Amino acid sequence: MPPAAEPEELIEAARAGDRGALARALSLVERGGDGAHRAGRAAHRHAGTAYTVGVTGAPGAGKSTLTSSLVAHVRATGTRLAVLAIDPSSPYTGGAILGDRVRMGQHSLDDGVYIRSMATRGHLGGLALAAPEAIRVLDAAGYPWVIVETVGVGQVEVEVAGAADTTVVVVNPGWGDAVQANKAGLMEIADVFVVNKADRDGARQTIRDLEGMLDLTTTGRWRPPVVAAVGTTGEGAAELWDAIGAHRRSIEASGGLAERRRRRNRDELDLIVTKRLRAKVASLVDPDERAAMDAAVDAGRLDPWTAADRLLGPLDA
Amino acid sequence: MPPAAEPEELIEAARAGDRGALARALSLVERGGDGAHRAGRAAHRHAGTAYTVGVTGAPGAGKSTLTSSLVAHVRATGTRLAVLAIDPSSPYTGGAILGDRVRMGQHSLDDGVYIRSMATRGHLGGLALAAPEAIRVLDAAGYPWVIVETVGVGQVEVEVAGAADTTVVVVNPGWGDAVQANKAGLMEIADVFVVNKADRDGARQTIRDLEGMLDLTTTGRWRPPVVAAVGTTGEGAAELWDAIGAHRRSIEASGGLAERRRRRNRDELDLIVTKRLRAKVASLVDPDERAAMDAAVDAGRLDPWTAADRLLGPLDA
Repeated sequence: MPPAAEPEELIEAARAGDRGALARALSLVERGGDGAHRAGRAAHRHAGTAYTVGVTGAPGAGKSTLTSSLVAHVRATGTRLAVLAIDPSSPYTGGAILGDRVRMGQHSLDDGVYIRSMATRGHLGGLALAAPEAIRVLDAAGYPWVIVETVGVGQVEVEVAGAADTTVVVVNPGWGDAVQANKAGLMEIADVFVVNKADRDGARQTIRDLEGMLDLTTTGRWRPPVVAAVGTTGEGAAELWDAIGAHRRSIEASGGLAERRRRRNRDELDLIVTKRLRAKVASLVDPDERAAMDAAVDAGRLDPWTAADRLLGPLDA
Repeated sequence: MPPAAEPEELIEAARAGDRGALARALSLVERGGDGAHRAGRAAHRHAGTAYTVGVTGAPGAGKSTLTSSLVAHVRATGTRLAVLAIDPSSPYTGGAILGDRVRMGQHSLDDGVYIRSMATRGHLGGLALAAPEAIRVLDAAGYPWVIVETVGVGQVEVEVAGAADTTVVVVNPGWGDAVQANKAGLMEIADVFVVNKADRDGARQTIRDLEGMLDLTTTGRWRPPVVAAVGTTGEGAAELWDAIGAHRRSIEASGGLAERRRRRNRDELDLIVTKRLRAKVASLVDPDERAAMDAAVDAGRLDPWTAADRLLGPLDA
C-alpha cells in the first residue's frame, strides 16, 4: 500500500504520467465524499478538452468486446484514449480491476490507453455524480478521448451514456433487440447505432428495422448511422470510429456540442445542489420520525404539505 | 365574479354539491401557491377513496373522443365520475373551460359527471404537483372515479398518467405508432392498451404487434390486455371499462395498489420538499449572479462544487 497522498497531489502525479496515482485518484472519486470532491476540483483546473463517447446497450450485447476492438483500432492510429467501464451492480472491491485485466488484457502493456472499471455503491445519484468526476480526472491526466461503457440499460445508465458527447447504442441481430432498445429509451439518445455480432443470422433485418425506425423518428440534422460490427474479429471497428468522428464534426459545426455541454453542466450542478439539500434535510430528521411520518401519510392521517413543513422546519429555525 | 371565498369554504361547498365552488377550488389548485395548498389540505381530510385512471398516448390518437365514449358508457351504468384533462401547453386562460364544452358537450347537463381541463404555467414540477392536488379535490367532492387524460407524451405527462392507479395507453393502427409508444416509454407504464380508430386499416396488425411486444416484455402477474375501440362510435368502451375493472381487482388483490399509492405518496412528498428547497436556494441567490455563475462554469473558470457552495452558502449562514 503506497503512503497516503493528498487528492491534489494524486492529480498532479497523474498528470505527470503516474498511472498508479491516476488509479488512486479514480478510487477516491468512486468512494465519493470529500476526497472525491477535492480530486474533482483539482482535476477541473486541467480538464475541458477530452471528448467523451458513451457506449450502451443491453447486457450481453458484446459492448466490452466491441469497445476493446475499437480501442485496438484507435491505438493503431496513434491516438491516446481512456475507457471507463461502469457497472453499478458490482460491489466496490478490487474485482473491478481484475475484470479489466481479463476483459481487456491485450491493451494492458500499452501506455497510450488507460482502462478502468468503476462500481458505485448504489446510492442515489452516485453514478450520475461519480461518472463526470471520473471523466474529469481522466481528462486532466491527458486522455483526449474517454469512452464510457455502461453495463446495463437502467435509467441512470442510459442517462450517463446519453450525457456523453457522442452516444453509441449497441444492439444484436433479432427484432426483439431493436424493440428492447426502444423500450429502454435508447432510440432517443443514440447518435450512432452498432449492430454487433453482425455475422449472425438476422443482422440485415435488424439493420433494416433500425433504419425503418430512424425513418420515423429522425427529425434533426443528424441521422444516426447504423454500423455492422463483429467485436470478436474487429470487423466494423474502423467504420464505428469514422461514424463517431463524423458525429463529432457535425455537432462541433452546428453548436450542438456546446449546447450538450452547457446542459450537462446545468444537470451536474443541479444534481450536486439537490444531493446536498437532501442530505441536509435528512440530517435534520430522525429516521424513526421519518418512518412514522411516511406511515401517517399513507394512512391519510397526515397531508404531504404538513409533512413537508415538519421535514423542512428545522431549516428555517 | 362571485365574492372571494376561503379555500376551505370552497372545498366544503364542493362537497355539498356546488359545482361552481368545485370549479373555483380547482382554479386555485391550478394557480399554485398558498391557495392551492390550503385547498389541497382541506380536500385531503375528505379524500382517499377515489380510484384514478390515467389515459395517455400521442397527440391525435383520439384520447378525448375515447374518454368521452368511456364516460358515456360509465354514466349508463349509473356510476359517477370526473375527468381531468391535462394540457400543459395551454396558457392559463378561460380557454380551457371553453375546450371542455366543445369537446365533451354531450355530458355538460349530467350532474353525475364533472369534466375539467387544467393547464399549468409550465413551471418545473407544476403539473406533477398540481395533478395530485386536483385529483384530491375531485375525490373530496365525492367522485369515486377520476380519469386523468394527458394531451401529449412528454416525460412529465407520462409520469402523471403513469402515477394513476390504472394507466391506459392509446395508440392508433400503424406499425409506427407502436414504435412511438415504445419510444415514449409507454410500454412500461401501460396497464391496458387501446387501439383506437380500430375501424381503420392495420388495426389487426397493430394489435398483433402490441401482443408480440407484450410477449417479450411482460414479466409480472398482470399482462396488459389490448382493447380495440372506435371512440367516435363508442365501440369498445364497454370492453375498456371491463379491462380497467379487471386491472383494479388484480392490483387490489395483489397488494399492488397499496404499493403504487405508497410510492406515489413518497414521490409527492419528495417533489414538495425538493420544490421548496429549490425555491429557498433560488430566493437566496440573485438571478444575475446565478447567470454569471453558470457562464463561469461553462467557461471552465468555476467548478461545480464551488458553484454549489456559493448557491447553498446562505442556507448555512
